Amino acid sequence: MAILERHDTGAVAHLKLNSPGSLNALSDAMLAALQSEFDALSNDRSIRAVILSGEGKAFCAGHDLKEMTAGRQAEDGGKAYFKDLFERCARMMMSVQKLPQPVIAQVHGIATAAGCQLVASCDMAIAAEGTRFGVNGVNIGLFCSTPMVALSRNIPRKKAFEMLSTGTFIPAEKAEDLGLINRVVPHDQLSAATEEMANMVASKLGAAVKIGKEAFYNQIQMPLDQAYAYTGDVMVENMLYRDTAEGIAAFLEKRTPDWQQ
Amino acid sequence: MAILERHDTGAVAHLKLNSPGSLNALSDAMLAALQSEFDALSNDRSIRAVILSGEGKAFCAGHDLKEMTAGRQAEDGGKAYFKDLFERCARMMMSVQKLPQPVIAQVHGIATAAGCQLVASCDMAIAAEGTRFGVNGVNIGLFCSTPMVALSRNIPRKKAFEMLSTGTFIPAEKAEDLGLINRVVPHDQLSAATEEMANMVASKLGAAVKIGKEAFYNQIQMPLDQAYAYTGDVMVENMLYRDTAEGIAAFLEKRTPDWQQ
Amino acid sequence: MAILERHDTGAVAHLKLNSPGSLNALSDAMLAALQSEFDALSNDRSIRAVILSGEGKAFCAGHDLKEMTAGRQAEDGGKAYFKDLFERCARMMMSVQKLPQPVIAQVHGIATAAGCQLVASCDMAIAAEGTRFGVNGVNIGLFCSTPMVALSRNIPRKKAFEMLSTGTFIPAEKAEDLGLINRVVPHDQLSAATEEMANMVASKLGAAVKIGKEAFYNQIQMPLDQAYAYTGDVMVENMLYRDTAEGIAAFLEKRTPDWQQ
Repeated sequence: MAILERHDTGAVAHLKLNSPGSLNALSDAMLAALQSEFDALSNDRSIRAVILSGEGKAFCAGHDLKEMTAGRQAEDGGKAYFKDLFERCARMMMSVQKLPQPVIAQVHGIATAAGCQLVASCDMAIAAEGTRFGVNGVNIGLFCSTPMVALSRNIPRKKAFEMLSTGTFIPAEKAEDLGLINRVVPHDQLSAATEEMANMVASKLGAAVKIGKEAFYNQIQMPLDQAYAYTGDVMVENMLYRDTAEGIAAFLEKRTPDWQQ
Repeated sequence: MAILERHDTGAVAHLKLNSPGSLNALSDAMLAALQSEFDALSNDRSIRAVILSGEGKAFCAGHDLKEMTAGRQAEDGGKAYFKDLFERCARMMMSVQKLPQPVIAQVHGIATAAGCQLVASCDMAIAAEGTRFGVNGVNIGLFCSTPMVALSRNIPRKKAFEMLSTGTFIPAEKAEDLGLINRVVPHDQLSAATEEMANMVASKLGAAVKIGKEAFYNQIQMPLDQAYAYTGDVMVENMLYRDTAEGIAAFLEKRTPDWQQ
Repeated sequence: MAILERHDTGAVAHLKLNSPGSLNALSDAMLAALQSEFDALSNDRSIRAVILSGEGKAFCAGHDLKEMTAGRQAEDGGKAYFKDLFERCARMMMSVQKLPQPVIAQVHGIATAAGCQLVASCDMAIAAEGTRFGVNGVNIGLFCSTPMVALSRNIPRKKAFEMLSTGTFIPAEKAEDLGLINRVVPHDQLSAATEEMANMVASKLGAAVKIGKEAFYNQIQMPLDQAYAYTGDVMVENMLYRDTAEGIAAFLEKRTPDWQQ
């Protein structure tokens, strides 16, 4: 069994973290497997949406503490290994945003530390009732400084600070209120809910979603006037796609578009 | 009948989009009319608040797709026209923020695509029960990349991304929860609610609101220390207004201020 | 009686604004006392959390308008005094964020203008039922331009703009919904609630909280890739603390960590 399973249904790729014994910890092997799949997906025009889920009791419990502890045996006490580890992890998290396809986190059980960061890094997320979210590294003396990069760009800062400095968990309903996830569903409807969302996204024009997703994360970091200058150019490019012309014509003529994608 | 109607009551200007047959689409003519009124208002010290509403079934349904489709007939396939169109539209949206007076969107029916962007670009917004908001261009192959500039500065990013990539609408109550609008009222109380808000703003010292509104959007894009250095200077300038001195003196003496504005 | 009282219980410092007759106005003396305590606390490794409360009917009603009015008697109409005043105030507000220890606002009664800014500037806040929050300077002709720096970094912008331009107050429950405070409790449970939160924070590894808090406010202003590069280095440093190694080892061995802090 691979540590990361993939199966595709139509234009939707399903990635499943498959290391239930470690609560799907982001070990060196898991990080490499995720990076490899994201790299492959970034050039796969047949896929228009991605669902990311976890096998077993939890979505993801963060970094692999046993592996990190073993890393301390190096002459430098693990310094070089840790630096490389956090770089690989951050690269993987940013790859989710850089992927042309929207990525939906399908969350259950717990999502903690870098596992919570992974949820925050996805474009959208749906969680099962009973799921708990935390950035609780502070409880063992390791403040969740990299997870907070993603978390603090999703939820109001006082709520993020409380989670980070007290180590307390929030339930799925609270995570929805705060904006960390899009919605909560009963556990037995979780996979159906993410598939419905993925299929809806996959039914759109892939080229438009791709250019739009890229623009979303680029413009959000720009001053207003630059954001408008940039997205104006994106809109012009989008307007000139053959399939967009067809989509608009079909809408005006009240018929289904004949997209070539 | 003008495509954009204006009537003033006291210090409040009412602008009404008046192209109900096109659901108040932001056609070339509508954009020009809005820009013209905003330019005029920017120098009109007798007006201290603006209400923006729409005639007919909808507040605004976004760009004029028929006009855009006609633009494709140009030799360049419409490229130059589209570029100019999105620049004019962005300029109009930014003019709302640059206006010295607060602008309140009075929203009913639907506010979609650039119509939703217009709501997001206003300083405040009140919607009637039953109003629906969407950035649904993705449904016809045109990702709402310019509307998302305003939207993603109003609501949490995962919620914005869902609206953009799935094309689904949200009801007014959800729009209020997310921060896209200030509140929801029954339809028959909508104009009374925006007028009450506008009159409240108009009862304040116009010079203070002007300098404060300008500072609001400037500081929000600055690092914290710059934001404080800048707004500190704004506060000093505000303190030195004759009418502010009178306002503070009146407060300390428990009397009504005698403002000269 | 000092204008600012301090007493410590264990690793928690309690600061109480003690000028109830002025509703704990941020007078020159109060600003100086706060700055002095924050400067002292910044080097006090025995303290790991701070609670900030107010004596009397209100948490804090903002600047001291009588003192500011007296400042107008200077030859320049108060210009130099006001500039210095807003600089001192901003420095104090930023000192809250720069403090190594998390600061929890314990809010009751009212928190208005710079008093509301003080709540927004704290890392976390708990308010008693019945507390009202406002940035109502506009009512006397003085737009709350410095308070909005902190406020607009806590709550959605349309809600912030409404408070600023209409001068209306929001109740504690609304402040929680918007993200200005962490939660609301009955008045007779207020001090117990902030103490519980402070004790929870103080039970963590102080060095981890310190490096994490500093990183929180630094990274939030950076582009995503810079934020990850920076926090990655912070994580490496944190991993190399002796007490963090012990914390992780204790967790893996299911025992209580033996921290030397």
